[in-house]
Amino acid sequence: MEKVILLIQCPDQHGIVAQVTQLIFQQNGNITESNQHSTDLEGGRFYMRLGFILDTADRTILEGAFSPLGKSLQAEWHFHFESDVPRMAIAVSQYDHCLVDLLYRVSSGELNATISFVISNHETTRALVEHHGIPFHHLPVNKETKAVQEKKILDLIREKSDFLVMARYMQILSADFLGDYGKEVINIHHSFLPSFIGANPYRQAYERGVKIIGATAHYATMDLDEGPIIEQAVARVSHTDTVQTLKRKGRTLEQNALASAIHAHAEHRVIRHGNKTIVFEP
Amino acid sequence: MEKVILLIQCPDQHGIVAQVTQLIFQQNGNITESNQHSTDLEGGRFYMRLGFILDTADRTILEGAFSPLGKSLQAEWHFHFESDVPRMAIAVSQYDHCLVDLLYRVSSGELNATISFVISNHETTRALVEHHGIPFHHLPVNKETKAVQEKKILDLIREKSDFLVMARYMQILSADFLGDYGKEVINIHHSFLPSFIGANPYRQAYERGVKIIGATAHYATMDLDEGPIIEQAVARVSHTDTVQTLKRKGRTLEQNALASAIHAHAEHRVIRHGNKTIVFEP
Amino acid sequence: MEKVILLIQCPDQHGIVAQVTQLIFQQNGNITESNQHSTDLEGGRFYMRLGFILDTADRTILEGAFSPLGKSLQAEWHFHFESDVPRMAIAVSQYDHCLVDLLYRVSSGELNATISFVISNHETTRALVEHHGIPFHHLPVNKETKAVQEKKILDLIREKSDFLVMARYMQILSADFLGDYGKEVINIHHSFLPSFIGANPYRQAYERGVKIIGATAHYATMDLDEGPIIEQAVARVSHTDTVQTLKRKGRTLEQNALASAIHAHAEHRVIRHGNKTIVFEP
Amino acid sequence: MEKVILLIQCPDQHGIVAQVTQLIFQQNGNITESNQHSTDLEGGRFYMRLGFILDTADRTILEGAFSPLGKSLQAEWHFHFESDVPRMAIAVSQYDHCLVDLLYRVSSGELNATISFVISNHETTRALVEHHGIPFHHLPVNKETKAVQEKKILDLIREKSDFLVMARYMQILSADFLGDYGKEVINIHHSFLPSFIGANPYRQAYERGVKIIGATAHYATMDLDEGPIIEQAVARVSHTDTVQTLKRKGRTLEQNALASAIHAHAEHRVIRHGNKTIVFEP
Repeated sequence: MEKVILLIQCPDQHGIVAQVTQLIFQQNGNITESNQHSTDLEGGRFYMRLGFILDTADRTILEGAFSPLGKSLQAEWHFHFESDVPRMAIAVSQYDHCLVDLLYRVSSGELNATISFVISNHETTRALVEHHGIPFHHLPVNKETKAVQEKKILDLIREKSDFLVMARYMQILSADFLGDYGKEVINIHHSFLPSFIGANPYRQAYERGVKIIGATAHYATMDLDEGPIIEQAVARVSHTDTVQTLKRKGRTLEQNALASAIHAHAEHRVIRHGNKTIVFEP
Repeated sequence: MEKVILLIQCPDQHGIVAQVTQLIFQQNGNITESNQHSTDLEGGRFYMRLGFILDTADRTILEGAFSPLGKSLQAEWHFHFESDVPRMAIAVSQYDHCLVDLLYRVSSGELNATISFVISNHETTRALVEHHGIPFHHLPVNKETKAVQEKKILDLIREKSDFLVMARYMQILSADFLGDYGKEVINIHHSFLPSFIGANPYRQAYERGVKIIGATAHYATMDLDEGPIIEQAVARVSHTDTVQTLKRKGRTLEQNALASAIHAHAEHRVIRHGNKTIVFEP
Repeated sequence: MEKVILLIQCPDQHGIVAQVTQLIFQQNGNITESNQHSTDLEGGRFYMRLGFILDTADRTILEGAFSPLGKSLQAEWHFHFESDVPRMAIAVSQYDHCLVDLLYRVSSGELNATISFVISNHETTRALVEHHGIPFHHLPVNKETKAVQEKKILDLIREKSDFLVMARYMQILSADFLGDYGKEVINIHHSFLPSFIGANPYRQAYERGVKIIGATAHYATMDLDEGPIIEQAVARVSHTDTVQTLKRKGRTLEQNALASAIHAHAEHRVIRHGNKTIVFEP
Repeated sequence: MEKVILLIQCPDQHGIVAQVTQLIFQQNGNITESNQHSTDLEGGRFYMRLGFILDTADRTILEGAFSPLGKSLQAEWHFHFESDVPRMAIAVSQYDHCLVDLLYRVSSGELNATISFVISNHETTRALVEHHGIPFHHLPVNKETKAVQEKKILDLIREKSDFLVMARYMQILSADFLGDYGKEVINIHHSFLPSFIGANPYRQAYERGVKIIGATAHYATMDLDEGPIIEQAVARVSHTDTVQTLKRKGRTLEQNALASAIHAHAEHRVIRHGNKTIVFEP
């Protein structure tokens, strides 16, 4: 038995659900999960996630059977097999709180993913990573070496990862890198109401006296902190907080938002379209 | 154009989704929402909510078309038409916070429901209710008159309401009443971790020094506070809270949990099975 | 018996708490609440809120007794008597959700304040306000009449209010108005992570696909939406939200954040310093 | 310079704050934090936490100076010196999620505490604990050995710990043990609205269809799960949760509630009285 997830998006039109579910039925699939979303019934875009069980799942047969319908719907679609556990590569700098959290969640089975390796521009986290039996690659970066090091990262992760997590990786990945990798990159950063631009945002938040701080996990795009949002987390703060305690609370928010985003991504519950995401709840 | 919601539950079996969506498609329905849940793929029970748009919706034709499939699936099913706005009757005693909240949410269009009338065993809220142009019925209750008054309530609401809300109605409705009414009754009450049984639960919570209080909205059953839970709300409290402030915070929780529960119920997003609910998110 | 609240701020220095509490003790005050905050022990600023009970409270005697100490500490200080219930004026435009909420919270005794009158540039809410027995003043505003109407508002509220609440009042109060009024003005507006500038922020939030929306209550300053933050509230949203449902959820956040801010302000738990607030918890 | 925390409780009476702060002032203490709470102004009990800075702190002098006032107030009181970092012993069984979380929070400096050693009735967590350079003691327990093993635990922790954390230690500590240890023991367990008694509470919660689950951290007493509550945490769940996902979410709640409780306890912000706690916010 294999659990399969179909993600599909196409122009909204009459009869999509009926046709798709009919086809799954004809392939002897038993549908166990369905989520859909349409931006607009007239001229909008339709998104669906279908989970189904097959006694024997053959990708070639399944894709072959679905292909004519996919074309007629002008759809983008993909079948994810549950037995293909997503492999994530992790990039990290010196702040290790997100890395520690991900190592634990993967090893405890909370995240449906494996960690192929950890890449860092610092040596700081090597012992921790290797204690978990995961390969660690130290790739320090400066202006001169950036292009070369990005190439090395690409060589490492291109084949052996299904997505890349920037777990507080304090380097900006170039547009070339993102384009060449061609898979999703998930990033995490702090967020505030109102937003603060420039250096030391926690100090700015402190000086503005905000009562709530947040963190945002998103897909990385050319415009680093502005990609499609997957998850956000918030916490209350007060005048008793210092810049230090704001940072500490921010770390917990970053851990939680990033882990939730990876959780949804690894279960194929996120569909990206333009600068937004559809995140289907379980 | 009419929006229709189909709620269906049946023993889980192969091909339900495909067959149901195919039938909707044949009726020229355009499916815009779908949620499903199965308690167990083998021998479990299957629940689904489908929303679809029909150019012209005729209940007789639709039910006629669906009936054979419903039978073959051994399903309980119902079509809700969006133009049939649910009518709620409200029963209230002296605490008016939930009533005030519901009056505002209905008048502002936040709740997809109308209020047929308000019934109370006190006169306290008459002016408020009549200011909103809603009929108010004063039906005081004591041991002797209880059966008679319940009969009067039934006569009022049986035809002219689709569900009854106990918005802090401090009388226990008899099993006979619930059976005769035959429609859903939604109740709200306080909840704590741990629970407290007996009189004056807020004082008990105060004396136990709890840090979180809650409220639970549920369908009323014979066992008054034990029916299927629809919604729960919680709030943090501390040693600075008195029994009075606990009650005040509890009132807000009761308002919110009850309104959310009615919101879900009135949009036909709740399916009841046994002593549990399936509440489909939008 | 009278409950008195002392709010005091001064340069931080050795022995403030001991001296102030000693003085209250000499006045036969029984201290029941104390909160303090210092921005920095060396060269910082000190803030304190003391609540105490007096058998007989005479403002002249109390202020006379405190004045020498206040001067020696270079302090700003004020005694608030609990029997002086704060009077708020409310300004509102067409969106009435905050007004409705405040009317209920005042009438139910949840807010320690009275409403002197409601001022609006529309007639929409007159019936509602007058139903509560509160004077309603219709003061429509356009470019030509703005200065004149602000003058009328000032004449109304200067003597008969202790603070002004902009409960979704969609006019910008001039710097002259704020200066002439000389008391606090509390405003409420939506907030997002990230922030959105310009028209129709809920549409912008929708298009950016945010997962959390918020509302901020703050003291109004010349720079309308940028005054010291008193309270913020947030809620989760998802891709299923439309611009309409975002606005609906935003309304609830605005109600809650505004009511909490007024609650703290009316209990003299907010101290303003520069562009920040100290909000002492009960 | 030394930061000192005074925790004090006594019958409420006139002038406590003034007298205590005056005494601290005379000892050249600069008060930086003050929190107080009274259960009732007439005949109630008074609780206070004062933080102050001393240039040179000598416990004997400080206690000698305070002793007469403490006696006259009939107070229980204790001075905590910030340089005495609290030492916790941890007892754990097979579930390691709370242990992992505490190890990280201590090593990252988030918790103001050290870990003296970890005691377990299983070998499972030895490698993890020793990787952190912390002594691990394997003390398996069965009916026959329980008393002996408790004695061994006592011998280990009596001198070398300031409090004991039951981080999912699945053994009931005897009343004798608690009495002999004489210091605080902090325990964590799941909580539900309503509560469920007996085996497998997550299954009971699942079958009842609750929408919120929780965790409670409390001081252990003879009545194991009923001691004074320090902290509670809650999370929303839904019909899509299985017993497995409820347990996973419960683990996160247990981690968070336990860490918060230890955080407050280690900063001397918790005062215990009877079956309740006063937890002063920073």
